[in-house]
Amino acid sequence: MNDSAGRHERGKAMFEQVFGREPRPGNYPEFLELTVDHLFGEIWSRPHLSVEERELVALTAVALARTDWELRGHIGASLNLGMSREKIVEVIIQLAYYGGWPVANNGLRVAQEVFAELDATAAKESGHDD
Amino acid sequence: MNDSAGRHERGKAMFEQVFGREPRPGNYPEFLELTVDHLFGEIWSRPHLSVEERELVALTAVALARTDWELRGHIGASLNLGMSREKIVEVIIQLAYYGGWPVANNGLRVAQEVFAELDATAAKESGHDD
Amino acid sequence: MNDSAGRHERGKAMFEQVFGREPRPGNYPEFLELTVDHLFGEIWSRPHLSVEERELVALTAVALARTDWELRGHIGASLNLGMSREKIVEVIIQLAYYGGWPVANNGLRVAQEVFAELDATAAKESGHDD
Amino acid sequence: MNDSAGRHERGKAMFEQVFGREPRPGNYPEFLELTVDHLFGEIWSRPHLSVEERELVALTAVALARTDWELRGHIGASLNLGMSREKIVEVIIQLAYYGGWPVANNGLRVAQEVFAELDATAAKESGHDD
Amino acid sequence: MNDSAGRHERGKAMFEQVFGREPRPGNYPEFLELTVDHLFGEIWSRPHLSVEERELVALTAVALARTDWELRGHIGASLNLGMSREKIVEVIIQLAYYGGWPVANNGLRVAQEVFAELDATAAKESGHDD
Amino acid sequence: MNDSAGRHERGKAMFEQVFGREPRPGNYPEFLELTVDHLFGEIWSRPHLSVEERELVALTAVALARTDWELRGHIGASLNLGMSREKIVEVIIQLAYYGGWPVANNGLRVAQEVFAELDATAAKESGHDD
Repeated sequence: MNDSAGRHERGKAMFEQVFGREPRPGNYPEFLELTVDHLFGEIWSRPHLSVEERELVALTAVALARTDWELRGHIGASLNLGMSREKIVEVIIQLAYYGGWPVANNGLRVAQEVFAELDATAAKESGHDD
Repeated sequence: MNDSAGRHERGKAMFEQVFGREPRPGNYPEFLELTVDHLFGEIWSRPHLSVEERELVALTAVALARTDWELRGHIGASLNLGMSREKIVEVIIQLAYYGGWPVANNGLRVAQEVFAELDATAAKESGHDD
Repeated sequence: MNDSAGRHERGKAMFEQVFGREPRPGNYPEFLELTVDHLFGEIWSRPHLSVEERELVALTAVALARTDWELRGHIGASLNLGMSREKIVEVIIQLAYYGGWPVANNGLRVAQEVFAELDATAAKESGHDD
Repeated sequence: MNDSAGRHERGKAMFEQVFGREPRPGNYPEFLELTVDHLFGEIWSRPHLSVEERELVALTAVALARTDWELRGHIGASLNLGMSREKIVEVIIQLAYYGGWPVANNGLRVAQEVFAELDATAAKESGHDD
Repeated sequence: MNDSAGRHERGKAMFEQVFGREPRPGNYPEFLELTVDHLFGEIWSRPHLSVEERELVALTAVALARTDWELRGHIGASLNLGMSREKIVEVIIQLAYYGGWPVANNGLRVAQEVFAELDATAAKESGHDD
Repeated sequence: MNDSAGRHERGKAMFEQVFGREPRPGNYPEFLELTVDHLFGEIWSRPHLSVEERELVALTAVALARTDWELRGHIGASLNLGMSREKIVEVIIQLAYYGGWPVANNGLRVAQEVFAELDATAAKESGHDD
């Protein structure tokens, strides 16, 4: 497909574009490498879908998977890519009809937590400005 | 929310925009009414997401649900709304990473069947022209 | 828990009450034994839920699992236990809201096939009477 | 289907019958409106299934969905509608066989938490009486 | 199948082999009895798969089910049966490709918590030795 | 990670070891390349799990996903890698308890179809020998 240094650089740039931060070295460096080099460097970098469309697909899939921690990450990514809170909520409301009320109620609860944390951080930061 | 005649008309128009055909009276008229009047008349008609974005969410959800008959319907809807075959395939490829290889292999098989039928129909129709 | 001859007899009687027929010796006699002796002889025979309530739970679970063959079996069991067609359809319609439209559309399609086969059989049988 | 004021009133009454409390105005007023007006006002209010049967279907679906917060709500609803703790536990035990041991162990853990909180509340309230 | 005293003893021994501890009398004695006597006494005791292979199947299934509490139990069981941490992590990495990234990220997070607790316990215990 | 020619060769060899045949050029050459080069060349080729253990994980995941076509492929792969029919059936029986009866009944039906086709092919081939 292509050289491994190239896919690492491309993956890192794509990861940062999506999540708005560098990949964090964590407990599983080999899985992080698969995520950055392959998932972001070779899949998210493919043509035919824009990054915003790929995020819409990912947000939908993660909301349906009901894995809260992951969902928090992709709500953050959606905001980072410029999706409004209203639009994120609207995706989850539509999933009430394509995955069922438990998926939607769970997703809205997680979204609310993410939004509240962002508001609290913003309030604190604006407080520091005084 | 709003008057019932209004939501029926709006739902019918939205259904036709998405699927490119009228809702078919079938074996479950009451469920068709829920689909047309409520799902299309009240949910797909909500703001914050375009019809194309809603179809991307629906296509993703139905591919993950692995219900072939439904998936055929939403591949048809995606094409009808102007999504290219390449783009539909690309959504399913991304789902290999967000739902697993079984979801992707299943989805690609169904997409192939839909595309082949369309090609066969087109070939037959162009044959009639001779 | 209890003696193995007892649970086999109890399981066989319960299986026949639910499905309206004897367990069929098939390709996996050991799994059939687990189904009859344990699932029907020890679980369906437990107190606190009536057989009709257990079938409602099973029908719901199988519709959500989207395994057509199994769903056909439990639609048959529901009819055999006296549930009306309207009631079976109503369970599936409710599942549009608790499992999503793909679950409901899939379930209604399977129900329609089961009902049509029963009608065809009934028509043939009534024809033989002439 | 019917006038929107009617379905709101009917939905609110049905919601209160099921959950034993008024719908709480929360962070997503539009989704609450869909839940009350449409899900409870138009679906739970349909014929062919009793409210208790609908709750049995919902409890089963939510236990299979493994969304703890939702499951807590429907264990509460089941108790409110007169289902005994033994019966709720029995539904979850049956789901060990229709959804697997992880579903059942998860559901029993959540049920235990709900029951323990109710006992703690009852103990505190009876303590106040002294 | 076989006498009930026999299956209880066999189930108890198998449970202890897998989890490295006695079954804990808990809040649901009848479900524990089903787990010990039937699941471990009659299923895990069947031929054709080794205990290590059965644990690999169970670990895979529980990771895919995304029920954290259950997954913790089976990561513990895998370690107890001699599977290395590297091997457990490798199973979860493979599941990124057979169940999707949300399954893998969720599983790796739970594994990390289990490993950290074991390390903390080991550190405390080795501290006591000083 | 490593050079792309190397991973293609390694992936092709691993694919052939698992499925007992060359990858078939199909309708989606780019997804086949991802499957061969990445999934088989970079994931199945990782250390810590034997190929037989990876197939046990894959067979479990695919049976739980209830995608018949995929399941047929992995039952074939399991046989190709030397797993006996009894062992494959035993995995599926265990999944009755970790994914529910619908998963097991569906999996056993698919296994039966695969075994019957193999027997029919073997019978025909031995007939040709006469």
